Amino acid sequence: MLERIGDALHTDKYQITMMYAHWKNGSHQRKRAFDLYFRHLPFGNGYAVFAGLERALQYLENLRFTEEDIAFLARQPEQYDPDFLDMLRTFRFQGDVYAVPEGTIVFPNEPLLRLEGNVMELQLVETALLNFIGYQTLVATKAARIRTVAGNDLVMEFGTRRAQESTAAIWGARAAYLAGFDATSNVRAGERFGIPIIGTHSHSWVQDFENELEAFRAFARAFPEQSVLLVDTYDTLRSGLPHAIQVGLELKQQGKRLAGIRLDSGDLAYLSKQARKMLDEAGLTDTRIIASSDLDEDTILNLKAQGARIDSWGIGTKLITAYDQPALGAVYKMVAKMEQGQWVPTIKISSNPEKVTTPGRKNVYRIIDKVTGKAQADLITHVDERVDEKTPLVLFDPVHTYRKKRVTHFQAIELLQPVMRNGELTVELPSLEEIRRYHREQRSLFWEEYLRLLNPEEYPVDLSNKLWKMKQELIQQIYQTFVEPKKKQD
Amino acid sequence: MLERIGDALHTDKYQITMMYAHWKNGSHQRKRAFDLYFRHLPFGNGYAVFAGLERALQYLENLRFTEEDIAFLARQPEQYDPDFLDMLRTFRFQGDVYAVPEGTIVFPNEPLLRLEGNVMELQLVETALLNFIGYQTLVATKAARIRTVAGNDLVMEFGTRRAQESTAAIWGARAAYLAGFDATSNVRAGERFGIPIIGTHSHSWVQDFENELEAFRAFARAFPEQSVLLVDTYDTLRSGLPHAIQVGLELKQQGKRLAGIRLDSGDLAYLSKQARKMLDEAGLTDTRIIASSDLDEDTILNLKAQGARIDSWGIGTKLITAYDQPALGAVYKMVAKMEQGQWVPTIKISSNPEKVTTPGRKNVYRIIDKVTGKAQADLITHVDERVDEKTPLVLFDPVHTYRKKRVTHFQAIELLQPVMRNGELTVELPSLEEIRRYHREQRSLFWEEYLRLLNPEEYPVDLSNKLWKMKQELIQQIYQTFVEPKKKQD
Repeated sequence: MLERIGDALHTDKYQITMMYAHWKNGSHQRKRAFDLYFRHLPFGNGYAVFAGLERALQYLENLRFTEEDIAFLARQPEQYDPDFLDMLRTFRFQGDVYAVPEGTIVFPNEPLLRLEGNVMELQLVETALLNFIGYQTLVATKAARIRTVAGNDLVMEFGTRRAQESTAAIWGARAAYLAGFDATSNVRAGERFGIPIIGTHSHSWVQDFENELEAFRAFARAFPEQSVLLVDTYDTLRSGLPHAIQVGLELKQQGKRLAGIRLDSGDLAYLSKQARKMLDEAGLTDTRIIASSDLDEDTILNLKAQGARIDSWGIGTKLITAYDQPALGAVYKMVAKMEQGQWVPTIKISSNPEKVTTPGRKNVYRIIDKVTGKAQADLITHVDERVDEKTPLVLFDPVHTYRKKRVTHFQAIELLQPVMRNGELTVELPSLEEIRRYHREQRSLFWEEYLRLLNPEEYPVDLSNKLWKMKQELIQQIYQTFVEPKKKQD
Repeated sequence: MLERIGDALHTDKYQITMMYAHWKNGSHQRKRAFDLYFRHLPFGNGYAVFAGLERALQYLENLRFTEEDIAFLARQPEQYDPDFLDMLRTFRFQGDVYAVPEGTIVFPNEPLLRLEGNVMELQLVETALLNFIGYQTLVATKAARIRTVAGNDLVMEFGTRRAQESTAAIWGARAAYLAGFDATSNVRAGERFGIPIIGTHSHSWVQDFENELEAFRAFARAFPEQSVLLVDTYDTLRSGLPHAIQVGLELKQQGKRLAGIRLDSGDLAYLSKQARKMLDEAGLTDTRIIASSDLDEDTILNLKAQGARIDSWGIGTKLITAYDQPALGAVYKMVAKMEQGQWVPTIKISSNPEKVTTPGRKNVYRIIDKVTGKAQADLITHVDERVDEKTPLVLFDPVHTYRKKRVTHFQAIELLQPVMRNGELTVELPSLEEIRRYHREQRSLFWEEYLRLLNPEEYPVDLSNKLWKMKQELIQQIYQTFVEPKKKQD
């Protein structure tokens, strides 16, 4: 068995190392706050779709070291103190978690999760949280792009065989579904999450029979109401289509119907147009055309531009591996320390300005224009601040601060919600169908300019005045403490 | 629990659909043979490293439908016949498997696995086998490239947080190790596979203390013999290095030693050279320099060319996701049918010539020159053929057939070995250490021209005369049966 929901060893060794070093140092109970977020949008997209929260929370709830895990650690060259290993026996995650709801449209540098707890538990969980949320958010974002170009066509996730191992297939199917896909080929994902599962037959089915017509007839006998016939095993237009039409007419005579044909190779624009014509001429106007063949949002866009007559799209490799950018690069950074009962903001500086963290425990508000009903900007504030909807708000770009905007008549929706307290869920998690519906509603909050695939407008994510000042002060302070004194020595 | 070793629902719906259609049609006991292989090498590499076999065989051995799985299928709109579902209760994989050993250097279009069994079981397992073997072979191949440029430096897999979900992290760590990596950060992979695990501390460790020096001292107290200090939290040369050196000298006074420093950002070439100089000047000549920061074979090659003084490399995202080509695109094709007790070769044609399959149950011989000890070519034969080492062999390119080569004084090593009979393992699988050693030996069989990273020579993979003729005949036959008659009707 390789996968447990709360597998404490699904982590980097350095987390265990730091747990131990804190324990040895007596600093393991220090209370800290960490933010999880990403710095760059994938695929040149204008937004990301937050996903993976349910998986992350189940992990935190069930996090345990088993006896075997502890025995393994005891064998390591570090020779951990037996009292430390003993402590791991009863170790539980007991922190608090604030999170954006799954399916939310999110942007770079916004905290998606904030965790508060002791430094030991917060270190341990970093790796798994990034692993779960990074992947699902990446696939959900890719799926949203594909859903956008596919319009109201049926889109199906077909990637299991090309997924990066087994759990990617299952959770990738879930991420795609919540971002608007209609079905998956992955049976386990269907069983686990209630996602509709879809699948017909492969070329080997056709190869298995004396000839294509016999293969199609045998298949239609097994599924007289739901047959989709793959027509490109030998020759799509000369063999596959005529045979499929013959079977379609035979079904029609029995009062049944050929549900569809599938094209899996060749020039899908040309073939689909020819297929539609041949099917229509035979009176099979309600037989649908399904395409699959290394598709993604670009190929679908191009096929549609060429007038392809495709009703339904099966998307494999390019979606499940997020082929054009297979990692989100999410990060998890300490933002505050508890000192003498007070939260003190912390910062991580870097010679690369975009890697400088924004200090403090934060909230994110989505500012909705009450007249248009559309999102105008997101505002990151310190948790102590409250956005007053009655007072006009001045938003400014945190890098180019002269870019200002005054907003009135707005609604401010708090995105980060408490979901776990002392290691226990405090909310009922939404069902996958609810998440999917919520994601669809989210989309309607944004102007099309932010959602388009190519060169989207950059959606404003601003810092509150208080937070911005706090950041500048801490940067100064760090330089004075750590960098400047050394320079003087030079 | 999402992951079972023999999870029968880790498959595409269409496999279940075809199982059912065959069962309804009474054709489910037909005996068939399938090859698993890939058509193109990833990353512009000259070879691939076969990996994932152990995972695949464990899956086949443990393949089961649970009662919950069957209950789920019973709820599907297909309304499967209850007798079919009953049959699934006792379903076991009972086929035969022939496989190339894990760690073997392999090439496009060579069968890596051949499965023989009834068509129903062979369909069911397709998806999972491609998923397991595709991913591990991809990562092992990427790891081999990185190992090549790193020479004898220590290389460590650090990708868990950026892996595509949890099992990718674990099996990716295994694949990297068998292809020559020295360690992983993934603790579960260490526990499960005995891979050495490595990890020090993160920036948040340093942030957690009043100042960097205190953070380093606290860490060194916990690990007086094995401390590696991360020196880029504030300023590598002005703060991190001086503090690390101070702690290193303190350790030295206690008769201990600072094991290393880690660079995780900035200009690694410059910083490592400066760091080496500073460490050496302080007498810390045996403190090693470790680098990590979005590395892959290209950045390592360039850093080495710039004279970087890096002893050890931590590789994350680019390896674990196979970033520049995140899917291998392995395929699984029917190559023979049993008819009246005789194996009859089958072919799948395509308008794309490279997608035409090579028919028949095959073996692969690696032809080794007895004088040089080097591999000259691989020869794919029909299983009925025996390569006689005493007779000169004429090899020819299967596409450009005029390209011929006559070889004498050779050894012919059979690559495909029987590993499973009637669903049971017939061999003891090698340990991971044995696979790793075997892979290293494999590399020594190949001229450097085939192994180099950029523009490698194309290693010859030839078909036997018999197989080549069989393929041509079947192509003719298919065209005459399926395509030509339709043309006449036009």
